[in-house]
Amino acid sequence: MEITVLPSVNEARADELINKTVIVIDVLRATSTILTALAHGCKAIYPVETVLQAKQLYQPGFILGGERACKKIPGFDLGNSPLEYTEDVIAGKTLIMTTTNGTRAIQKANKACTIIAASLLNGKACAEEALSLKKDIVILCSGTQDVFALEDGLCAGQLIDEMLKLAGNGSAGFIMNDFGLSMLHAFRHVQSGILEALLQCANGKRLSKLGFIEDIHYCAQRDALSLVPVVREGKLVASSVSHHI
Amino acid sequence: MEITVLPSVNEARADELINKTVIVIDVLRATSTILTALAHGCKAIYPVETVLQAKQLYQPGFILGGERACKKIPGFDLGNSPLEYTEDVIAGKTLIMTTTNGTRAIQKANKACTIIAASLLNGKACAEEALSLKKDIVILCSGTQDVFALEDGLCAGQLIDEMLKLAGNGSAGFIMNDFGLSMLHAFRHVQSGILEALLQCANGKRLSKLGFIEDIHYCAQRDALSLVPVVREGKLVASSVSHHI
Repeated sequence: MEITVLPSVNEARADELINKTVIVIDVLRATSTILTALAHGCKAIYPVETVLQAKQLYQPGFILGGERACKKIPGFDLGNSPLEYTEDVIAGKTLIMTTTNGTRAIQKANKACTIIAASLLNGKACAEEALSLKKDIVILCSGTQDVFALEDGLCAGQLIDEMLKLAGNGSAGFIMNDFGLSMLHAFRHVQSGILEALLQCANGKRLSKLGFIEDIHYCAQRDALSLVPVVREGKLVASSVSHHI
Repeated sequence: MEITVLPSVNEARADELINKTVIVIDVLRATSTILTALAHGCKAIYPVETVLQAKQLYQPGFILGGERACKKIPGFDLGNSPLEYTEDVIAGKTLIMTTTNGTRAIQKANKACTIIAASLLNGKACAEEALSLKKDIVILCSGTQDVFALEDGLCAGQLIDEMLKLAGNGSAGFIMNDFGLSMLHAFRHVQSGILEALLQCANGKRLSKLGFIEDIHYCAQRDALSLVPVVREGKLVASSVSHHI
């Protein structure tokens, strides 16, 4: 089984994702927020690229969420902070979401066999689900404006670390690219200090300055949730597979 | 002081290297070989992109070295194995060298203020020299055919680790990009097992298959040499600065 980690959306060629399981990562904050919304009872999430597309899809009762330059979009119900997506706001609702990097990465992966949205919050469960699909895996770090983001790389390392543990002796059959290997090493070095690493990276500093430091603390909680968001018919929904964390 | 690590030659924009110190890394094997040749008394090395350029520059008494697809170029005196560049072969000689990735990276950096060729063999000395120049630093991992190579990333991490140690309290003024941070974490994780990491990466496996496993053992020797190759008037020569390792 091949496991390929790509450092940013720019590096992904849509044709190379055909017949693969693609795991999209945007730890700060899109995939953490998507997971949180689904875990709190959101029925489904439409990931869209533009504000216009979001408004065109809108129907009464839907929730509009997302960000531009880390901030809530004018006229939208919610921003991109996972802490906004509480059960009382989102349970039973359909969400339309547009973010600068994460939802774009999901769109880019649309030729994949399966698309999974991963974050540090559900890395172990995502690793389990991806392995069970028995396809080659591409881990797509969303990055920020086509620049690699550390927190996404660390999550890629977490996923590989979990896959190696799950596969045990079978992991000898894994073929990993050099970028994936380096993210595994980086994750293993900082795994007991993930929060500190997130506070030091570019997005961590940017979000702290903008007053979102609690989001970073929340998103750094490794394996706090066992739900796996997957794309079915263009919408992100909770996978029906049960995972053990 | 900004320290930016770029994952491959493709990611470097020549204009962004103006007025910077650029450190080019191609651990397996161009920068390790360049260093070894200079350490064994080679007078100067012309790094050129094509075989034709190498032949046009040739003068009687010069040595032609380099590789294509890891192998010696027909009609050349030497390949790209550092172990070929012994004192009896290279002392006092001028070398013309062309390799697939490393010499191309050096050419790409031609607008830089200073170009340094680094490898695991002289990481500490290169870190010392680069810091002493007091310019922003770009560390350019050569990679292989525009794909990131683990061994170059680990050497970038080694350089940053040394710079942080050398700067001590002053390192708080360093601004590092996220890719550089992740390479620092990866290096720190594998620093006591560099050889094993090199044997597992793509180039390590490729060179082992081609019979060059001794080159990998040689190139993995961290800080074995204190010489720093720098580019002066288009040629790689030994820096006149003395370093302590």
